[in-house]
Amino acid sequence: MPKLVELARLLNAKLLGQPNAEVTRARPFELASEGDVTLALDTAYVARVSESRATAIIVANPIEGASQHLLVARDPKLAFARAIELLHRVQYEPLGVSADLVAGTGTVLGAQLSVHPRVTIGRDVVIGDRVTMHPGVVIGDRCKIGDDTVIQANVTIYRECTIGKRVIIHAGAVIGADGFGFVPDEEGRQVKLLQLGSVRIEDDCEIGANSAVDRGGFGETVLRRGVKLDNLVQVGHNCDIGENTVVAALAGFSGGTRVGRGCVIAGQVGTNQHMTIGDGATLTGRTAVTKNVRPGAIMAGMPAQDYNAWRRSQVLYSRLPRMADRLRRLEKIVEALTRSSATSAD
Amino acid sequence: MPKLVELARLLNAKLLGQPNAEVTRARPFELASEGDVTLALDTAYVARVSESRATAIIVANPIEGASQHLLVARDPKLAFARAIELLHRVQYEPLGVSADLVAGTGTVLGAQLSVHPRVTIGRDVVIGDRVTMHPGVVIGDRCKIGDDTVIQANVTIYRECTIGKRVIIHAGAVIGADGFGFVPDEEGRQVKLLQLGSVRIEDDCEIGANSAVDRGGFGETVLRRGVKLDNLVQVGHNCDIGENTVVAALAGFSGGTRVGRGCVIAGQVGTNQHMTIGDGATLTGRTAVTKNVRPGAIMAGMPAQDYNAWRRSQVLYSRLPRMADRLRRLEKIVEALTRSSATSAD
Amino acid sequence: MPKLVELARLLNAKLLGQPNAEVTRARPFELASEGDVTLALDTAYVARVSESRATAIIVANPIEGASQHLLVARDPKLAFARAIELLHRVQYEPLGVSADLVAGTGTVLGAQLSVHPRVTIGRDVVIGDRVTMHPGVVIGDRCKIGDDTVIQANVTIYRECTIGKRVIIHAGAVIGADGFGFVPDEEGRQVKLLQLGSVRIEDDCEIGANSAVDRGGFGETVLRRGVKLDNLVQVGHNCDIGENTVVAALAGFSGGTRVGRGCVIAGQVGTNQHMTIGDGATLTGRTAVTKNVRPGAIMAGMPAQDYNAWRRSQVLYSRLPRMADRLRRLEKIVEALTRSSATSAD
Repeated sequence: MPKLVELARLLNAKLLGQPNAEVTRARPFELASEGDVTLALDTAYVARVSESRATAIIVANPIEGASQHLLVARDPKLAFARAIELLHRVQYEPLGVSADLVAGTGTVLGAQLSVHPRVTIGRDVVIGDRVTMHPGVVIGDRCKIGDDTVIQANVTIYRECTIGKRVIIHAGAVIGADGFGFVPDEEGRQVKLLQLGSVRIEDDCEIGANSAVDRGGFGETVLRRGVKLDNLVQVGHNCDIGENTVVAALAGFSGGTRVGRGCVIAGQVGTNQHMTIGDGATLTGRTAVTKNVRPGAIMAGMPAQDYNAWRRSQVLYSRLPRMADRLRRLEKIVEALTRSSATSAD
Repeated sequence: MPKLVELARLLNAKLLGQPNAEVTRARPFELASEGDVTLALDTAYVARVSESRATAIIVANPIEGASQHLLVARDPKLAFARAIELLHRVQYEPLGVSADLVAGTGTVLGAQLSVHPRVTIGRDVVIGDRVTMHPGVVIGDRCKIGDDTVIQANVTIYRECTIGKRVIIHAGAVIGADGFGFVPDEEGRQVKLLQLGSVRIEDDCEIGANSAVDRGGFGETVLRRGVKLDNLVQVGHNCDIGENTVVAALAGFSGGTRVGRGCVIAGQVGTNQHMTIGDGATLTGRTAVTKNVRPGAIMAGMPAQDYNAWRRSQVLYSRLPRMADRLRRLEKIVEALTRSSATSAD
Repeated sequence: MPKLVELARLLNAKLLGQPNAEVTRARPFELASEGDVTLALDTAYVARVSESRATAIIVANPIEGASQHLLVARDPKLAFARAIELLHRVQYEPLGVSADLVAGTGTVLGAQLSVHPRVTIGRDVVIGDRVTMHPGVVIGDRCKIGDDTVIQANVTIYRECTIGKRVIIHAGAVIGADGFGFVPDEEGRQVKLLQLGSVRIEDDCEIGANSAVDRGGFGETVLRRGVKLDNLVQVGHNCDIGENTVVAALAGFSGGTRVGRGCVIAGQVGTNQHMTIGDGATLTGRTAVTKNVRPGAIMAGMPAQDYNAWRRSQVLYSRLPRMADRLRRLEKIVEALTRSSATSAD
């Protein structure tokens, strides 16, 4: 149970209030009560601070006359994320290795593991320390799994994939399935391009439930350090997703897509093959990328355009019926004018 | 083998025909033969009733001169659904509990279960009566599973989720994975918002194959009574889906979306965070919800508009080339008029 | 290690170079070095042939002055696919049947199987020869699995499905879950249409990771010979997908969709129920099919139009702001003209 002075230090916030007051939980504004630290981010919540029974409130600016202790932070949302972690993170405790573990020859296990029942590991796999594997996890031959990584239930990792440290892979995700590559032959039959590459997922990545990251055709499919994928995301063969890029649900990257670092990819986005998306770009919901995207761009629409241009076209699109009316009206007037001008020329 | 008089009573239909005639199967119009009850819903099928070898036909209105027994129902499709159920539902028979069940301490099992091999259950779980769990099912600590629920193979349910009675969860679905919440820190690294909430799925819900329902950040993600999700649907953290709402494949709800009761959500629909969709609304295929939707509305497009407005814009959109031509023509005429008017003013 | 003369014969290519030279690997242009055969397909690569250290290069036309051995093929990409297969395909070697296999009564196993640990098979199933089943595979009662088929980890196949020969089903895929069919009753409750049909997947199909192919309501859902599905694809009940059609990730077919043979269905495509898509049609990324598509058509947009028409509308769409400006300008001019014409008529 940290004192506020200590919490303020850890959150890099300025404390306006009692240094010795204590909080035990972090809770959102609507749910917070005594003993809680909460967040008042939107002006709507700031205006309702007097209603809150929270003991301490994280804010962007001091609030005149607030009865609660205030933690003034430059980035209140980040401070709140850290408060949640400080107050609620459960200390890792190794469960040991279930007696029914099936592991192939040459596989090396790290220390202090939590291997639940019904885990199956292939040959020559290297498992780091403090790795958690839930029931139904299947890991193929020659994979490497880094320290402190958590693999949830029923995840499948095909052969020869490398997973970094502190990675979280949610249930049902599939890492390293074959990329989608076929060439029709003379009779129209689809000939498979054997998929001989692999997948590398770097440290601190998180992969959502039932997402799929295909192996490279040749070479690697790469998720760089800190990439976060939501559920049901498709990453095609030989994609390379840059550091700290976040990708929302149901987005799909075609083979060979290169995404920069720090990008924000919203839900249901899609890309053509071999696209390059620059660092720090934002693709809003359902953007369809058919040309390379420059760094820092904010894109929308199908095909993708600059967000502002798309917005303007979008507004006009909804006004198309009115534009059509105006055009028809003009045509009538102009026809009348033409007729009268012809008449007057007679 | 029910007699028609009995079937009519159960379907709430009026029998025009032999009370003692019998049917053994319900089959669609194209496949029905002797001994079958079928459905003639569309006028196309009604016109072809004389071709049918079915013993009985469910119809909306009496058909002059039909040789088959007719079951006239106010809602023929509903009557047919009930006929299928009456004639084809297999009586539940408990298989018992496979000897290899792994269940943690404190877990309580109901009566008359069907627990297939290779099921893994955590600690302090409560399993109701007549629950079916197929191979590969993984249930986390402190979950509750209601009576008569069926959990298909390789489903994962994370800790502390509550599943109601008569729920069907199809293979590969993931219930209770972490919501997608991250805040970038000062160096652009994504800090995880711990996901401390849970999932509540009420009675009579059905969840499609490989769908994902995330746990709440705080509080619950809720599917209310009778919600039906198709395959590959994404339900983000803290969504609340109203009673009897149906959601087609590949639709995704961002965090905090509230959907009313009795809504129809078509395939590939997406929503922004914290949207509210009113009771009885229809979102046609691939609607993108960026503003709240009023009850009963029928929406389409991206961003979502009223269906009729969208339809008009859509038609005009396909006529844009013609509109562009007309505009160009007008410009020429007007230019000529301006010139001649300037000349005549000279 | 084949000699080039032999390789040329197998690839149906014309060799320009040393018949006795040898290659051991097939590698893409950027990665190829000595001992490799590679592909120079794009003119960009053809121009850089002198940089390549590959021993042999597959090309469409002879290259003047190339120092490497050339394999001139009518379809170089197909020749390269075959070269990869010839040089890299691993000969099948049966692993045998894991001692922990759970198989129901009446199930018949073929010869030379590779059944990994933790596979569960129901009753009266027929498994062909040389079938591979990875851990976590669950196969329901009365299924048939053809010779040489590979079923990756954690795949679920429901009861009564038929899988052909040489099929590959990637991890997490679900075959034969219930189709999505409900009818609201008098109180708005969704009544389930029991799904009594099955799935038939013919020879040489491939199903991507976490894809879902629902069983028919009545009758079958069919993937015909050589169909290739990417990851996270949804195939609704009673769909019928024609021979050699390829379907990219996150595409979804509503119930009863009929797709012809040799079609190319790009990512995130969706279809309304009961659509028919003709042989050889191409649906570009995210096409939404709301009317039948004629054979050979190339479609785009939502709702789907002919690609070229869509392209024109798309260009005009991005020019809508300019069109709006021009319309406004015209209106002003015409207003002035009308006024001056009225004045001159006075």
